[in-house]
Amino acid sequence: MSYLRHIWYPAAWDGEVSDTGLLRRTLLDESMVLFRGKDGVAYSLADRCPHRYAPLSMGQIVDGTIQCPYHGLRFDGAGQCVHNPQGEKSPPNAQAQSYPIVERHRLIWIWMGDASHADPELIPDLSFQDADTAYVGQGYLKVNAGYQLEIDNILDLSHIQFLHATTLGSGGVSAGTYTSAQEGNIVWSRRETVAEIMSDELSLIMGLVPGEPVDRWLHVSWQAPANLVLYAGAVPTGLPKGEGREGPSVHLFTPETNATSHYWYGFSLPKAMGEIAEKMAIDQTKFLEVPFTTEDLPMLEAQQRNLGSRSLDDIKPVWLPGDAAGSRARQILARMIADEQK
Amino acid sequence: MSYLRHIWYPAAWDGEVSDTGLLRRTLLDESMVLFRGKDGVAYSLADRCPHRYAPLSMGQIVDGTIQCPYHGLRFDGAGQCVHNPQGEKSPPNAQAQSYPIVERHRLIWIWMGDASHADPELIPDLSFQDADTAYVGQGYLKVNAGYQLEIDNILDLSHIQFLHATTLGSGGVSAGTYTSAQEGNIVWSRRETVAEIMSDELSLIMGLVPGEPVDRWLHVSWQAPANLVLYAGAVPTGLPKGEGREGPSVHLFTPETNATSHYWYGFSLPKAMGEIAEKMAIDQTKFLEVPFTTEDLPMLEAQQRNLGSRSLDDIKPVWLPGDAAGSRARQILARMIADEQK
Amino acid sequence: MSYLRHIWYPAAWDGEVSDTGLLRRTLLDESMVLFRGKDGVAYSLADRCPHRYAPLSMGQIVDGTIQCPYHGLRFDGAGQCVHNPQGEKSPPNAQAQSYPIVERHRLIWIWMGDASHADPELIPDLSFQDADTAYVGQGYLKVNAGYQLEIDNILDLSHIQFLHATTLGSGGVSAGTYTSAQEGNIVWSRRETVAEIMSDELSLIMGLVPGEPVDRWLHVSWQAPANLVLYAGAVPTGLPKGEGREGPSVHLFTPETNATSHYWYGFSLPKAMGEIAEKMAIDQTKFLEVPFTTEDLPMLEAQQRNLGSRSLDDIKPVWLPGDAAGSRARQILARMIADEQK
Repeated sequence: MSYLRHIWYPAAWDGEVSDTGLLRRTLLDESMVLFRGKDGVAYSLADRCPHRYAPLSMGQIVDGTIQCPYHGLRFDGAGQCVHNPQGEKSPPNAQAQSYPIVERHRLIWIWMGDASHADPELIPDLSFQDADTAYVGQGYLKVNAGYQLEIDNILDLSHIQFLHATTLGSGGVSAGTYTSAQEGNIVWSRRETVAEIMSDELSLIMGLVPGEPVDRWLHVSWQAPANLVLYAGAVPTGLPKGEGREGPSVHLFTPETNATSHYWYGFSLPKAMGEIAEKMAIDQTKFLEVPFTTEDLPMLEAQQRNLGSRSLDDIKPVWLPGDAAGSRARQILARMIADEQK
Repeated sequence: MSYLRHIWYPAAWDGEVSDTGLLRRTLLDESMVLFRGKDGVAYSLADRCPHRYAPLSMGQIVDGTIQCPYHGLRFDGAGQCVHNPQGEKSPPNAQAQSYPIVERHRLIWIWMGDASHADPELIPDLSFQDADTAYVGQGYLKVNAGYQLEIDNILDLSHIQFLHATTLGSGGVSAGTYTSAQEGNIVWSRRETVAEIMSDELSLIMGLVPGEPVDRWLHVSWQAPANLVLYAGAVPTGLPKGEGREGPSVHLFTPETNATSHYWYGFSLPKAMGEIAEKMAIDQTKFLEVPFTTEDLPMLEAQQRNLGSRSLDDIKPVWLPGDAAGSRARQILARMIADEQK
Repeated sequence: MSYLRHIWYPAAWDGEVSDTGLLRRTLLDESMVLFRGKDGVAYSLADRCPHRYAPLSMGQIVDGTIQCPYHGLRFDGAGQCVHNPQGEKSPPNAQAQSYPIVERHRLIWIWMGDASHADPELIPDLSFQDADTAYVGQGYLKVNAGYQLEIDNILDLSHIQFLHATTLGSGGVSAGTYTSAQEGNIVWSRRETVAEIMSDELSLIMGLVPGEPVDRWLHVSWQAPANLVLYAGAVPTGLPKGEGREGPSVHLFTPETNATSHYWYGFSLPKAMGEIAEKMAIDQTKFLEVPFTTEDLPMLEAQQRNLGSRSLDDIKPVWLPGDAAGSRARQILARMIADEQK
């Protein structure tokens, strides 16, 4: 399936990209290297020297440029060859492919379409993660399943009771009320439960008394290509929601290939809560890693193996109410891709 | 190459399928899950939930049904969704693909063609293995070679002297007389030797005095698709065969893919022999595992690698007398497959 | 890309082929087995018995012939079946494919085109390696990159400063003078430096005083398909070259497949130097293994991964002066292949 091109994709957490080491990453089937120049600005170049296709990611950062490991050509963040030890001047066509990059909301965003359309205003608003106001736990996983299965999985709140029976779910989740909604090109999936008994570990991590019934909500928003924000909260049953703490967590996916994807997830808390919030954000993010790696990923990867090169749309699957939001998201994404290719 | 469809294939030994765990297996390129219902009856469903293609084999048996690990749909042995925790009733098209299964002669048989033709009378008679009258040693191997190479190998008794020089063979085998015959669609391959000195280990396992010359016979029958029975016996040289013990062993193959196969082998002895026969059947089966895994499988897998996607028929190999029975079997099988596709 | 056929390819060092064991090797996509007959003469047969495609390399040498491991057919060095234990005589078409082989200059050469053109006079003159006059250190590596990248790499002397910065190179190399030349179908690449400071280890291995400036030369010749000889030497700066020692080293490549290759490298010294020369030739060859395996191979294999099934010619790379000789070699090779296919 074709990828959406005229959109910003997450490429890395800010801390993954540095001015001392090179990060190799494949996005939308294209291999690239990410680094920071002398000014700390993040850049991305195709991971092949235009001279002999040596991977620039095997080179090193010299004076804010990437030096090719094979013959020593150096390229700046725009991909221009700025140093040629093999000759008097740079060869005229010594230009490495570069991608527009913007750093915002603790993430490195990349534009993999026509660069003239790369308007930073199109980056989704994740300002609840901004460094001046929030602590952010940052998690990353590589997933051997396509990003559309990940979108479905996050929007589908009905699987929690089964796949996450002893970690994130409880019998109460299936007794919840489920709604989905669309606002423009944003899809919402919402689940609310009353008097649910959560697992002890989940209760503690959310700052609630284990074993006590709670009213809990999970609201997830999706926007293209695969940026999801989950607002989760709970209060002792009967109390107004406003008395509970709602922590947003991001679930951002970028295709590596059609059948594999990058997954950045993170939990944020406001700095206004004090220093304790930093540890809580990190702990909550770490807590999520267990169900993700032991429950979600094995399932998604098994689905992907069963699907092979087909997509779920190809096989006309059985439809359940929990698929409503994911189904809307698929339709919007398919339409956006089709529009782009007109 | 196409598979024969209107025939029963071995899918498992009886003990491989249980009412507590799920057995995932790929047969004829199709992945399935085998289990037993509350009544102990064996069933097989395609290993993908019709909802999101989650592998049912990752689920669990609940109340005699398979519960999908992702969203909790439950399917009975016929593939019918009998429980939907996500809604009031089962979705109309929530039907997992099921395969006709019959349990007979200690084996689970599967029909992978049009179910309306699945007549249990077509299952080959291996009643010498029946639980009420026989002890059966049960062996299983996965083979990275196509099942037709396995058929050739078992019917070809001339390789024993070379491939199994120190285990099953001896110089005497090559001095034996060899005949092949066809009875309807059954092919026989027979080898008889006189005054052969077998290996000590083989002599002991067959209940004979090591080092003493014996008259030995190996009679193999084949019927489609790949069910072979080897009747092996030996008597001190000169004695009538009737004074010896003839143990039948089955060699049953089902394609996993065109280039890999399942191999069930087993040695049977009548319960009338007393309890000692149980240990002997198991020992003899274990004894076979060594030459199979260290001599036959490496050879067959190397042949398969050399052949790649070609079959032996494509390459017009040199023909030796020992190939007569295998050649007949190939012809019968090819004709049966061609007839089925008319 | 097609291979040149009417030419001799290195297939092995002389010591790799014996009369007691079988060497399996794939050259130009064809799997073969190399061995020596009773007379010590080297032979090569396709690695598949014409009977059932069993790999002959799994067999054994019996009486100067290869005995197939499966059914005991024996083949002589010409591929003729000379023994058939399964019948009175050899089947008429029991002929294994054989390749013309010549042993010369400590190497086993193979001809993989029309055998009627296999003239040993076409073998390149590497007589400086002959056993009666020279000691030869013999190295072998398997490379997961195509042989054309290897040709480029050896002819390109400009990469030494970067890829081999701390092993074979030094800043002085980039200050050297570089020339390339063509003599008939032989391509020369030459680099000369003045007052270069080499690494201590390299100085010692070349018999020079560490830390002292030297005048150094690297002259490389290439001839098709991928036979390169590197003449390296150095003298204390200012002295005439004639006072230094020039050791020739061979760098011989044969494609295993289009994307993988065999690499035989060796350093030779004349026996006239005395017994110390044997140790020196072996040490120098061992010394080369480190930069080859830790610097060249990772780079070439990364280039190959970046290129995939494309060749460098397809991607129209940036051209630097150091590519001149490799570029000429590619053109000659392409023309020779094209001529052959007319």
